[in-house]
Amino acid sequence: MTVRHNYDQELEQLRQSLLDMGTAVGSAIDDAVVSLARGDIELARKVMAFDDEIDQMEVGIEDKCMVLIARQQPMARDLRIIGTGLKITTDLERMGDHAYDIAKITLGLANQPLIKPLVDIPRMAQMAQKMLKDALDAYTTLDIPLAEQVCLNDDEVDDLYYQVFRELLTYMMEDPKTITQATQLIFVARYLERIADHATNIAEWTIYLVTGQRRRKK
Amino acid sequence: MTVRHNYDQELEQLRQSLLDMGTAVGSAIDDAVVSLARGDIELARKVMAFDDEIDQMEVGIEDKCMVLIARQQPMARDLRIIGTGLKITTDLERMGDHAYDIAKITLGLANQPLIKPLVDIPRMAQMAQKMLKDALDAYTTLDIPLAEQVCLNDDEVDDLYYQVFRELLTYMMEDPKTITQATQLIFVARYLERIADHATNIAEWTIYLVTGQRRRKK
Repeated sequence: MTVRHNYDQELEQLRQSLLDMGTAVGSAIDDAVVSLARGDIELARKVMAFDDEIDQMEVGIEDKCMVLIARQQPMARDLRIIGTGLKITTDLERMGDHAYDIAKITLGLANQPLIKPLVDIPRMAQMAQKMLKDALDAYTTLDIPLAEQVCLNDDEVDDLYYQVFRELLTYMMEDPKTITQATQLIFVARYLERIADHATNIAEWTIYLVTGQRRRKK
Repeated sequence: MTVRHNYDQELEQLRQSLLDMGTAVGSAIDDAVVSLARGDIELARKVMAFDDEIDQMEVGIEDKCMVLIARQQPMARDLRIIGTGLKITTDLERMGDHAYDIAKITLGLANQPLIKPLVDIPRMAQMAQKMLKDALDAYTTLDIPLAEQVCLNDDEVDDLYYQVFRELLTYMMEDPKTITQATQLIFVARYLERIADHATNIAEWTIYLVTGQRRRKK
């Protein structure tokens, strides 16, 4: 086996670790929103506990990147793979934090009925999930058109965020009893909007990885 | 001049670029909160325009890190200096984004008087600013006790955030006309609380830089 062959295997392991972390983060987001919609305290607690594991995945990926830099002398695209690895893991970790934030809101709202059935918030979560999945697929297959599509989808999530925000303001104005909960739901929508931003960042890092060209981050 | 001497100069330049970016971000946060307290639209626009420059600083620092990795074969602490450089610039860029977010809220609230004089929000901003300054000082002088102090100060900012949050909820409940503005001010407080988290991250990266030991990030 050549040195280069070993090295490629290590880069492939790095890529796989990022995908595994992405899958874990995707599940956490999904569980967090389900816990909120159903008032499922146990599931919310599970999401919060799982955040430590996501943080550990980030540390593992960062260590792997550092070891790769120290042992090899990466150049050009190899270097960009490691550099984007360090950046993408930060985005994934922040998405995991937002899943934690949403689960924490589930705990805070428990034992009170929701002021309305959640429709747009689960829809935002689905859109953000799809963006995360597509961004990771684009990263894996170096698919620039797919990465660009993720960036475009972000506008739809932003629009939905403002719609949810305005709707919740209306609830608050019509019935002050809803204020505490509506404020928390606005935060949930904001976290989902940020999760979509981080998926967009991953898509933009993918474009950089392939082309060496930077785009403006979110 | 030895190769090592050149290399040390380049690491010193990296450190200086991070400090310059930190100073720029600190000014943006300061201007953003002043623009909000005074309803100063022009200052808010300046902060929003300046965000592009902060983003460019981040790109410059990332490129510098990549070049250093490609040209040298950094090991041990040198490698940690570059690795933490890549991470700290992400934290600084996010702080800059939050300054932008606050300035945008100033624009949205313009032409309406504030529901109350801002007291705790500027105080939060001052505390977050001091944490940023201390974190960068700790990073420059490799001062672990100072870095640890920054981490402790974060709890005070969190406490102040919850206090501001509860107070604004009370305003909303007592007078629904305040709801739109109070919601925006809650976001401002939340952004400042996040800015303090990012300063804490910088302090934690400093501890890692010196000791090689990781702490849990915020």
